[in-house]
Amino acid sequence: MSPRDRLHVVILAGGSGTRFWPLSRAKRPKQFLSLAGKVSLLRATWDRARKLVPVERIWTVAPRALAAAVLRELPKLRRDRLVVEPSPRDTAPAIALACSVIARHDPGAIAAILPSDHVIRDTSAFKRVVAVACRAAQGGALVCLGIAPDRAATGFGYLKLGARPRPGFASPVLEFVEKPDAMRARRFLRSGRYLWNAGMFVWRIERFLEELASVAPELHRQTAAVAAGSPGAWRRVPKISLDYAVMEKASDVAVVPLDAGWDDLGSWDAAARHASLEPGRGGARVMVGSEGTVVFGGRRLVAVLDVPGVVVVDTPDALLVLSRAASERTREIVQALTSLGREDVL
Amino acid sequence: MSPRDRLHVVILAGGSGTRFWPLSRAKRPKQFLSLAGKVSLLRATWDRARKLVPVERIWTVAPRALAAAVLRELPKLRRDRLVVEPSPRDTAPAIALACSVIARHDPGAIAAILPSDHVIRDTSAFKRVVAVACRAAQGGALVCLGIAPDRAATGFGYLKLGARPRPGFASPVLEFVEKPDAMRARRFLRSGRYLWNAGMFVWRIERFLEELASVAPELHRQTAAVAAGSPGAWRRVPKISLDYAVMEKASDVAVVPLDAGWDDLGSWDAAARHASLEPGRGGARVMVGSEGTVVFGGRRLVAVLDVPGVVVVDTPDALLVLSRAASERTREIVQALTSLGREDVL
Repeated sequence: MSPRDRLHVVILAGGSGTRFWPLSRAKRPKQFLSLAGKVSLLRATWDRARKLVPVERIWTVAPRALAAAVLRELPKLRRDRLVVEPSPRDTAPAIALACSVIARHDPGAIAAILPSDHVIRDTSAFKRVVAVACRAAQGGALVCLGIAPDRAATGFGYLKLGARPRPGFASPVLEFVEKPDAMRARRFLRSGRYLWNAGMFVWRIERFLEELASVAPELHRQTAAVAAGSPGAWRRVPKISLDYAVMEKASDVAVVPLDAGWDDLGSWDAAARHASLEPGRGGARVMVGSEGTVVFGGRRLVAVLDVPGVVVVDTPDALLVLSRAASERTREIVQALTSLGREDVL
Repeated sequence: MSPRDRLHVVILAGGSGTRFWPLSRAKRPKQFLSLAGKVSLLRATWDRARKLVPVERIWTVAPRALAAAVLRELPKLRRDRLVVEPSPRDTAPAIALACSVIARHDPGAIAAILPSDHVIRDTSAFKRVVAVACRAAQGGALVCLGIAPDRAATGFGYLKLGARPRPGFASPVLEFVEKPDAMRARRFLRSGRYLWNAGMFVWRIERFLEELASVAPELHRQTAAVAAGSPGAWRRVPKISLDYAVMEKASDVAVVPLDAGWDDLGSWDAAARHASLEPGRGGARVMVGSEGTVVFGGRRLVAVLDVPGVVVVDTPDALLVLSRAASERTREIVQALTSLGREDVL
């Protein structure tokens, strides 16, 4: 059996946030939005997973509150492949739970963990990188997919390598670096020895669970109990990210560079960059003298006259107009709405 | 009987245009919008007229297509005081028809002709100026109300005086000057001897109809025939403005300066200036870093982040975002929509 035949995909379908308000809401977070194409980011992730494995090896983990929405969005998802978190607890518990569930099913499985709210333009390149990662995982590594930085971003964690990464090869990760300040980020960019941590992982499940038991024994025990049918154990599970709970402390961590048009779509500005690649999306638009202005959502006619560089987000009950340069700051609007008691639109 | 007891008001409720698209539509032109206050401009004009005369001396002239809307907007308007133009023909025919109708009712009447799509903030000052105009009209003058320019506007006609205008007095008008270019407008502003022609007039109706018969005999005959009950005569009535048809050629034209917070609200920018004086109008708004940005229409929540100096116009089927500096250019959007065949939203 080749590593690829043991491969299972775990789609992380949880995740919430306010960066895409008002298109995203508490009940319809970012992964359900069509921010970069005709289908939702979650559905695009499913379609990508289908290029890797058959449906019976695609698992999706989501908190209970989103389970029905996930099943609607992914009609081919088998109900017995939906791993439900009793409540949201960040990435470490979600991934540990899914891996524990799969381990009961196929102890020799390799898992590819995929966030559902990123865009990856080049599926062929992605497939090739996952194949490389599978081989490294078969050899025992906990494999990250890493993105070569094209700017000194301060919004990502970085993976430190001993040398420049080689396309098509796994390299050892020397260190996980949390989101750096601008000066360190510029140094990382210049050095060429750092990759962004994209939150995608490939590993043998047995190996991962051993590592989990070693570095986070409580979390391992609790999630194993939930996987074995005792959902009550979830109550004591902390909210904690995988990087913090496991990866920073783990041994034999490797990275394969991914050059496949990846973007985490972290803001309206990023979504606008992608939307610009797809002219004609959405409803009727009339733009005059408004270079770089992008409209999302809505079936209404939207006209813009001499207002360049903004994003217009049109939904039935709320409208946002924001400068693309300010798109990291949507939380200021959300905070104002919270203090106005307007949870009805959040 | 004092001149004021003979006063009748004629509200010009016709008028169309695209400057306030998408809030204004073919079936709901500017005068029906609440651009500067809680009530429509038309209703505010009615309320102002009521400060001058009792309801039985308020006449409203409107094309047939708007008659029902006018009656809805002005519930106190007597049906027998609604003068219906069989079709829109610009100001000269509308005013001539209304004056002919009133003449049959009260030949000694004085008429104050009031457009319905301007704003006048100071009703007391307005009343005082109309009283001055009435006395001058009683003496035989065709009286215009003139606005002292506060900028070298090129969008208005100007009235040339022999000397600086005196508040509270009528001065002879030496010349009607059509919309000037920027250089002439600056010269007019500097000289202090020019007033904007605000399209408001006061005259003895008998005197006006004599002047009309003298300078535009065809128009006089046709509109008198319609007033006498022969609507077929309207077919031959040309589209022509009062200034062009009558005022430029008339003798004994005078002007009383009006200093009463007048604005013709010629663009979204002008409307935004007035809206800014009335905080809290409209639905819920959240503005962050968006100085000078104003939202019109809509009951939806509208949030603006770091986009200063724009107007957002929110309607159920169309949304406009425009730079206040570009607000003279809404026709470019309307033209684009026309060429797209989107008459449904015009």
